[in-house]
Amino acid sequence: MSAVGGGIEALVAGVLAGETRAVARMMSAAESGFAEGRAAMAEIYRHAGKAQVIGLTGVPGSGKSTLVGALTKAFRKTGRKVGIVAVDPSSPFSGGAILGDRVRMADLATDDGVFIRSLATRGSLGGLARASLDTADILDAAGFDLVLVETVGVGQDEVDIASAAHTVIVVSAPGLGDDVQAIKAGVLEIADIHVVSKADRDDANRTAADLKAMLNLGLTGRDRGDWKVPVIRTSAESGEGVEELMHAIDAHGEHLKTSGELEVRQRLITEMRVLKTAEDIVRARIEAERESGLKEVLDATAGRQTDPQAAARELLRHLKIDG
Amino acid sequence: MSAVGGGIEALVAGVLAGETRAVARMMSAAESGFAEGRAAMAEIYRHAGKAQVIGLTGVPGSGKSTLVGALTKAFRKTGRKVGIVAVDPSSPFSGGAILGDRVRMADLATDDGVFIRSLATRGSLGGLARASLDTADILDAAGFDLVLVETVGVGQDEVDIASAAHTVIVVSAPGLGDDVQAIKAGVLEIADIHVVSKADRDDANRTAADLKAMLNLGLTGRDRGDWKVPVIRTSAESGEGVEELMHAIDAHGEHLKTSGELEVRQRLITEMRVLKTAEDIVRARIEAERESGLKEVLDATAGRQTDPQAAARELLRHLKIDG
Repeated sequence: MSAVGGGIEALVAGVLAGETRAVARMMSAAESGFAEGRAAMAEIYRHAGKAQVIGLTGVPGSGKSTLVGALTKAFRKTGRKVGIVAVDPSSPFSGGAILGDRVRMADLATDDGVFIRSLATRGSLGGLARASLDTADILDAAGFDLVLVETVGVGQDEVDIASAAHTVIVVSAPGLGDDVQAIKAGVLEIADIHVVSKADRDDANRTAADLKAMLNLGLTGRDRGDWKVPVIRTSAESGEGVEELMHAIDAHGEHLKTSGELEVRQRLITEMRVLKTAEDIVRARIEAERESGLKEVLDATAGRQTDPQAAARELLRHLKIDG
Repeated sequence: MSAVGGGIEALVAGVLAGETRAVARMMSAAESGFAEGRAAMAEIYRHAGKAQVIGLTGVPGSGKSTLVGALTKAFRKTGRKVGIVAVDPSSPFSGGAILGDRVRMADLATDDGVFIRSLATRGSLGGLARASLDTADILDAAGFDLVLVETVGVGQDEVDIASAAHTVIVVSAPGLGDDVQAIKAGVLEIADIHVVSKADRDDANRTAADLKAMLNLGLTGRDRGDWKVPVIRTSAESGEGVEELMHAIDAHGEHLKTSGELEVRQRLITEMRVLKTAEDIVRARIEAERESGLKEVLDATAGRQTDPQAAARELLRHLKIDG
């Protein structure tokens, strides 16, 4: 027990000292979900809370991965350390994208002030939200000044993850098909900052004008006090707008602190996070006991002698919570 | 109590008799989440289990909504009743798509043997999976022979919903961008039947060949016994392949029954469903008590005096289950 305790203590100390190997090991330990990883993660969580967490989302093809790369370089020029959590199957960081992108990102990978972690959006039995928030906390506790969480802006889970940030950026691109645009309708309102990528295209003006019109109609998802949601045009080719975006992110961070909005937002993020963690615990219980403790009630539900509501209540009533 | 009970009994009886108004009212009652709706839904659930539920998913732009329309018409010609649950923001059924599609679907809406219900993928505080499965059960209990559940194939929740069906169809289309294709990588393996839409395009052959190559490599997500996953090419323009698809759906339904696979699948669907219902209950508890019973632990977590794991365990340990 003391050996294990020592192992955890050393690991946590390594993370807090910003050691790259400890950070990577801690991420694996957190993802494993084992008791030791959980215990270490509880320590890490208490030490996090200093970084500005930036959620960045947009539909596939909006160019958000390229933007994350450019933005990271801009932040690095100001001396700040940047952690990247990629929760996007089409992101070059998570290996899903075309070769050109990955080559372009390669120079980031060799910079000590940058740490990139990609999380699969499928295959992991749920738990994606918890895993990405844990990963962000580890980077935060390790002294990264900014943590960029990149998600594809489709699917409630992915949108929830992007929303669980201090500053939420939604990337739109001109020239995407109607079908793709339709998906993002519900995503736009979570933005603290709008970006129109591919600003060198002729139709970028219209996309920007559409977003401004939407904002003028007051279609923003939550009360943002006196923060005016900016619409910033960026171009990966020319680098246009990337500095402006960085300044907007800094300004929003400042706004959160001075307005007291930071605590409000932190409380909402916490609620979402506790919920997602509770969901993971319930899921693990079903996984573990589907053929033992829960077999009878699941069989009865499958056979329609009882119903899912009754079964779920039964499950929660007799939930065994360890630790 | 007896009056309320009578109300529920009449409503359930109306659904079981296949009365359109009762079906619509029952859906609203189920979505409301109130105790009466829950009680009625428990009854409905026990009476469902006769329909073949078909999950149909694909990326935006794959033409799946058009296919749902064509498929519905084909099933109607055989005299069978078809229920449609649209969980897709880009579907014409849920109002997200362009006008042309909606007009094309209008003739389905006037057919008594067809019932269409669309569910929003956002704005509803979670619960989407439960709502769509409840809706499918109501249609099932009301005597619809087939229930088509259409979801956009991105986001874990949407994929889970499509997977919770007897027969899962994944629609691919030629000519979509790399970014869009990358998303669907994890979705392909849930297919019992593959459809390549837009078969009149020159590059449809390649899409079909790619899918067949994948299948030959054995890349299918679960053991399907001796069911060979077919790849069917359809064209909304010429109507090519729609009858073939209908026959494949019938054959798969037959296969499930004769192989005993139906019970296995029903058990897996039940597990997922009980889990989603339990998640809904936990979410509702957090919503209801965020400023009362749970305030202290949520404040402590937001202030990083405790951590989300400890808070979630505390929450589940003291979960109040009513009813």
